[in-house]
Amino acid sequence: MDFKVFILGSGAAIPTLKRGTTAHLISCFQRNILIDCGEGTQIQFRRFRLKFQKIDIICITHLHGDHVFGLAGLLSSMQLMGRTNALRIIGPKGLNKLIEAQLDLVGHGDFFPLEFHILPENFVGTVFEDKCIKIAAFPLNHRITTFGYRILEKQNKRRLDKEAFDATGVSVSYIGKLIQGEDIIDNDGRLVRSAEVTIPGKPAKSYAFCSDTAYTTSILPHIQDVDLLYHEATFTNEFADRAAQTGHSTAAQAASIALKANAKRLVLGHFSARYDDELQHLEEAKAIFSQVFAATDGAVFNL
Amino acid sequence: MDFKVFILGSGAAIPTLKRGTTAHLISCFQRNILIDCGEGTQIQFRRFRLKFQKIDIICITHLHGDHVFGLAGLLSSMQLMGRTNALRIIGPKGLNKLIEAQLDLVGHGDFFPLEFHILPENFVGTVFEDKCIKIAAFPLNHRITTFGYRILEKQNKRRLDKEAFDATGVSVSYIGKLIQGEDIIDNDGRLVRSAEVTIPGKPAKSYAFCSDTAYTTSILPHIQDVDLLYHEATFTNEFADRAAQTGHSTAAQAASIALKANAKRLVLGHFSARYDDELQHLEEAKAIFSQVFAATDGAVFNL
Repeated sequence: MDFKVFILGSGAAIPTLKRGTTAHLISCFQRNILIDCGEGTQIQFRRFRLKFQKIDIICITHLHGDHVFGLAGLLSSMQLMGRTNALRIIGPKGLNKLIEAQLDLVGHGDFFPLEFHILPENFVGTVFEDKCIKIAAFPLNHRITTFGYRILEKQNKRRLDKEAFDATGVSVSYIGKLIQGEDIIDNDGRLVRSAEVTIPGKPAKSYAFCSDTAYTTSILPHIQDVDLLYHEATFTNEFADRAAQTGHSTAAQAASIALKANAKRLVLGHFSARYDDELQHLEEAKAIFSQVFAATDGAVFNL
Repeated sequence: MDFKVFILGSGAAIPTLKRGTTAHLISCFQRNILIDCGEGTQIQFRRFRLKFQKIDIICITHLHGDHVFGLAGLLSSMQLMGRTNALRIIGPKGLNKLIEAQLDLVGHGDFFPLEFHILPENFVGTVFEDKCIKIAAFPLNHRITTFGYRILEKQNKRRLDKEAFDATGVSVSYIGKLIQGEDIIDNDGRLVRSAEVTIPGKPAKSYAFCSDTAYTTSILPHIQDVDLLYHEATFTNEFADRAAQTGHSTAAQAASIALKANAKRLVLGHFSARYDDELQHLEEAKAIFSQVFAATDGAVFNL
């Protein structure tokens, strides 16, 4: 199935004409997950011709405005445009208060159900799971409580080795069990082992989102072997001190994390508004990790 | 002096690619006043190359999201970009709570002073005054407490009629008093009347902002003879019932108010996202009031 990441906003604290504040839409097995929702995210959906009514789950990393100030407006527009189905909203303590304070005061009437799932401090674990995908959360190292997220496909089903299966002579009604990995014995007493008539499915893929965060190896167990890693790179080496002071990372630090985590590809983002382009970020990161890309608003990554 | 109105957002509840949510910047005698601040207003400032750090006063009409969801983000960016001077914020009850709830939770540190001026229910009167301008507020008729605003130049000073003044033979040191409207007697006992040696200054101009509101003649005393009237026209005649139900106006109703108020010019705005253009609004309004214009994002009106 499709597994796509749409970058809706790739800038840091202050939105510019070039870069909106943080928001990523992940479409995976027809589940649509929004990670973060800076001011103007609903406009970015329109700009890139995506449909915000299709969002199933919103994951918020932390309560800085550039990651969350677009949420009340997005929810309001969803309601005004007739949404009735529930929306799950996952994030740190205070998120429900922040949103409810806005929606209460601005006096909306009946709202579609908002199912807040508030994560305890330092939470590590699964925050959503169904038969196709799983979302895990883990702490990042920022100035306030901040979570990273990893979205994982569940292991794809095994596929039938048609020739090997046909040779067994058992009924096709056993195929379902065999591709689930079960061995079977048919009515004639014939044993067929799943491993002998099926081949492994495509490897399950995953995407990890790490922003905002200072450089920290504590995240490595949670992002190991990820197919696509988004890691913030607010600064270049020149501002490494400022990165440390403000709980942010440099491009080289992001690349170092990607290398250590054995990520397949790295996307840098959350660039400070002081930079006109991301050439310096890319140069510094490429010296450490070659498969690196710079996020731009509207970019799409296929996994 | 310059008196300009910049339309930053001309749409209604749901922002589109064509129209942002409500925000007007009024520049008058080098005072910069922002009326309303829908989501994305700070981006509109950048788009139209205006400077949000120069805002002195923000007037909020009411606490619906499309008029106020951009305020916390704008204030955050002002702080991040180094603002230290105080900002006066005028609006209805609950405005300070709404903003403080956001700024408190998102954990900003030292902020420049925010001077909230909360208007009591049904307030009518002056909300700001200095030597050059005055801002008056008055109730509109919407679903929740909503204020309209009128920004007025103070009466311009009288100008000297040089020929008449020279004929009096009195010292030029009396000019200041004479153009203030005072009569003088000089040291030689000569009486000179202000009216005889000065002519009236340019008429003081004013701008009135009426959105959101259902049609109501109760606003007429507050907008009488205004030079430029912004009146919402969310709907066309076809949706007159819906306008009444939702506390909004049709274009014809806005035109009728402009006519009764003896406004010089009328700008329609707050167009529902259901309309692709504003031709129907203009046609219906022009049948009643000829000097009518449709707001577009980025439009500038000179008074």
